[in-house]
Amino acid sequence: MKKAIFSTEISLLRRTIQRLLRRKANTNLTKILYKTHPADVALLMRGFGGVEQKNIFNLCPSFSHKAKVLEELDETLIENMLLDESSTNISKMFLYLDTNDQAAIISMFSEEKQKEILEKIEAEDLEDIEEIMAYPDDSAGSVMTKETFTLNQNTTIKESIKQLQAVPENDKIFYVYVLDDQEKLVGVISLRSLVTSHNAQRLKDIMITDIHAATSETDQEEVAKTVAQYNYLALPVVNSQNKFLGIVTIDDVVDIIREEASEDFLQMAGVGKDRDILLKSPLENARSRAPWIFASLIGGICAAAIIGYFNHLLQEMIVLASFIPVIIGIGGNIGTQSSTIIVRGLATGRVDVGNTLPLITKEIIVGGILGTIYGILVGVASEFITGTELENLGMVIGLSIACSMTIATAVGASVPLILKKLNFDPAISTGPFVTTAIDILGVALYFIIASLILI
Amino acid sequence: MKKAIFSTEISLLRRTIQRLLRRKANTNLTKILYKTHPADVALLMRGFGGVEQKNIFNLCPSFSHKAKVLEELDETLIENMLLDESSTNISKMFLYLDTNDQAAIISMFSEEKQKEILEKIEAEDLEDIEEIMAYPDDSAGSVMTKETFTLNQNTTIKESIKQLQAVPENDKIFYVYVLDDQEKLVGVISLRSLVTSHNAQRLKDIMITDIHAATSETDQEEVAKTVAQYNYLALPVVNSQNKFLGIVTIDDVVDIIREEASEDFLQMAGVGKDRDILLKSPLENARSRAPWIFASLIGGICAAAIIGYFNHLLQEMIVLASFIPVIIGIGGNIGTQSSTIIVRGLATGRVDVGNTLPLITKEIIVGGILGTIYGILVGVASEFITGTELENLGMVIGLSIACSMTIATAVGASVPLILKKLNFDPAISTGPFVTTAIDILGVALYFIIASLILI
Repeated sequence: MKKAIFSTEISLLRRTIQRLLRRKANTNLTKILYKTHPADVALLMRGFGGVEQKNIFNLCPSFSHKAKVLEELDETLIENMLLDESSTNISKMFLYLDTNDQAAIISMFSEEKQKEILEKIEAEDLEDIEEIMAYPDDSAGSVMTKETFTLNQNTTIKESIKQLQAVPENDKIFYVYVLDDQEKLVGVISLRSLVTSHNAQRLKDIMITDIHAATSETDQEEVAKTVAQYNYLALPVVNSQNKFLGIVTIDDVVDIIREEASEDFLQMAGVGKDRDILLKSPLENARSRAPWIFASLIGGICAAAIIGYFNHLLQEMIVLASFIPVIIGIGGNIGTQSSTIIVRGLATGRVDVGNTLPLITKEIIVGGILGTIYGILVGVASEFITGTELENLGMVIGLSIACSMTIATAVGASVPLILKKLNFDPAISTGPFVTTAIDILGVALYFIIASLILI
Repeated sequence: MKKAIFSTEISLLRRTIQRLLRRKANTNLTKILYKTHPADVALLMRGFGGVEQKNIFNLCPSFSHKAKVLEELDETLIENMLLDESSTNISKMFLYLDTNDQAAIISMFSEEKQKEILEKIEAEDLEDIEEIMAYPDDSAGSVMTKETFTLNQNTTIKESIKQLQAVPENDKIFYVYVLDDQEKLVGVISLRSLVTSHNAQRLKDIMITDIHAATSETDQEEVAKTVAQYNYLALPVVNSQNKFLGIVTIDDVVDIIREEASEDFLQMAGVGKDRDILLKSPLENARSRAPWIFASLIGGICAAAIIGYFNHLLQEMIVLASFIPVIIGIGGNIGTQSSTIIVRGLATGRVDVGNTLPLITKEIIVGGILGTIYGILVGVASEFITGTELENLGMVIGLSIACSMTIATAVGASVPLILKKLNFDPAISTGPFVTTAIDILGVALYFIIASLILI
């Protein structure tokens, strides 16, 4: 555990590296990189351009240091760093990486390069890597580590401790997983109870047998929820015959939770789900953001067609146009609030899809309350702004706001729930979808109410 | 470790409990609750009404079971459950809780009740609780646990293991924290190296001395970032004299990360930062959501005033009104995308506040690219929708969309960065603020461009 640096100290280091890079002071750079925690090197690299990133990576003092930087690096950067690295060098870095990290990195390459690298990996690791690569993306199998500590249930405590001393230092040993003769998972023992038990006892006498495990196909989000829910340090992964495959550790769960939250944030705004979007070029950015902007464009054209349809009304009462933004804006905002609350509730397990009616009802009540208050406010304000040239204008606007807000909460709350029930990700572009729906519904409502009251 | 239940099995259990509650089959209920993991009881309770929640809590078979349910329960529910519980009963549950959980719960009560409960707590715990309660909200001190395992640096390995065996089973012992004679933190040792070292060695010979620690004032978000960044299992907390105070464990960090993500989600939508919002009444909901809806109302009225100002123009070219929604809608959506990317980048440490210009520039380029494409699209589409009664209308609309989208990305990217620089939470209501700003700017731009080109 090297001395790590708090984020406030990172920028000082960044400036130093920047200066040294400019001066091409490679010896000094290597010295600094040697003293810097690999996680900090990874963090620092994000702030530099592509050429400088490659320079920093190349100057890391050893294959093991490079491997540890890779462990912490974003996917996009890993790809760039290893693109023109020989497969011999890559396989040397791999010696210092967990098999699941190796599998994740190999999957980034073309099939040809994958083969090249796999050929250079030792037989023992190879099997594990190919196993992990075969599991679906984001499954427990794809994120588990095979580097665990398992023992047969008939091992004595004394022998267990001896064996524990023989394995290389590895932070990830929290529990001893106990297997039967068929390698099936039958129990688990904490390191602490191992240390505090009698030497002659066998593992099967002291192990906990009531274990919670994931299968290799379990979604990583489900794994993370389980670990968080029960405060586990690791969750064992088994196959359908209960054969022990590996474990998902809590430090990986921390990453999964952060990643899933980031994905939800980005998806809700209709940005796609690529967490590396900040590292992508403007053109790649534009490409992944375009589809949902297009959807809001289609919605806008529909709204234009609706307003066009009420042309005659607008012609007579031009002042109606002034209040279009407030009616759709306020509806869009309260609708987004509703969908945000539901999307987040679904992600954290606070919303139960089996019982959605009370949720939607509550949102509609909130919409009704705020709609009434703000409807009256804007209704009265509109009379002042426009003078009193038009009788009942205030009422039209107030009523439209109340309706638009109430409908917005209904739409905002329903959309993610419906997506979830249809087995889609409830976060997918909920934001643009809801605001666009309110653009259309709000405008239609407004002009219908206006024609009913004013004509 | 009781057999825990996957979330898909929770709803089955919920229905059973529902049925038993209706039948008032209390003996059966207690039996079921006894067999259910307390974390699952907490999860289940969320789906019930207030009276049923209280019933379930009361039927939990023991003070220790109740304590473990409290540990997992949302703040709002804890308050409701303990409201009419006697302070004697509360202090009995407290026997099974960490001091930091006790401190958190006591802080929820009125000063009078706090005193009552504190009087019933044993002197040893009392000191710890009062210490934790004195630290600011969301600081490392307020979330740390005092239940750790510390030893003097001169202790031998043999003696250390003996002492370890003497403390009650506690999952949270990951490391042994090594102190000097002044109780200052001087080193750390993993349980594993303790087990694998020679009996006669002293802790100071084998401990790691290069330690990363937080102070009691460090923000919990910073603690979480550090633990996540370096894959720690716990972070020690010291005072300004390096005296050891306690540790923040990774399972608490998992909760912090989830909480902070939830707060960011809610804050971005302008819903406040109360994670328990789903458990609150519609009226409480309306109250915390009202302020930012009000802001978007003020924005809407400004937009109305601007449109009113261009009344003469609109009168002549009524068709202009039709395209108000698309111009502000598409701008609002791309602006929200930009601010979401930045807010999330700031939360995960991917955005460096020291170097914001390239970020904003990139967003503006994205806005320019998509603005040009969609400007042309809508410009051409508008000519078809409206017929060709107005020369240059397509150009006005296309240009307005391009400008509105470009400005929206600039505003969307800048707002969270400025908030962060001013030391505010960058997520605070970025969503409503950005869309409202685009409502005003978009409308103003549109009519200025229209008057320049069409008159």
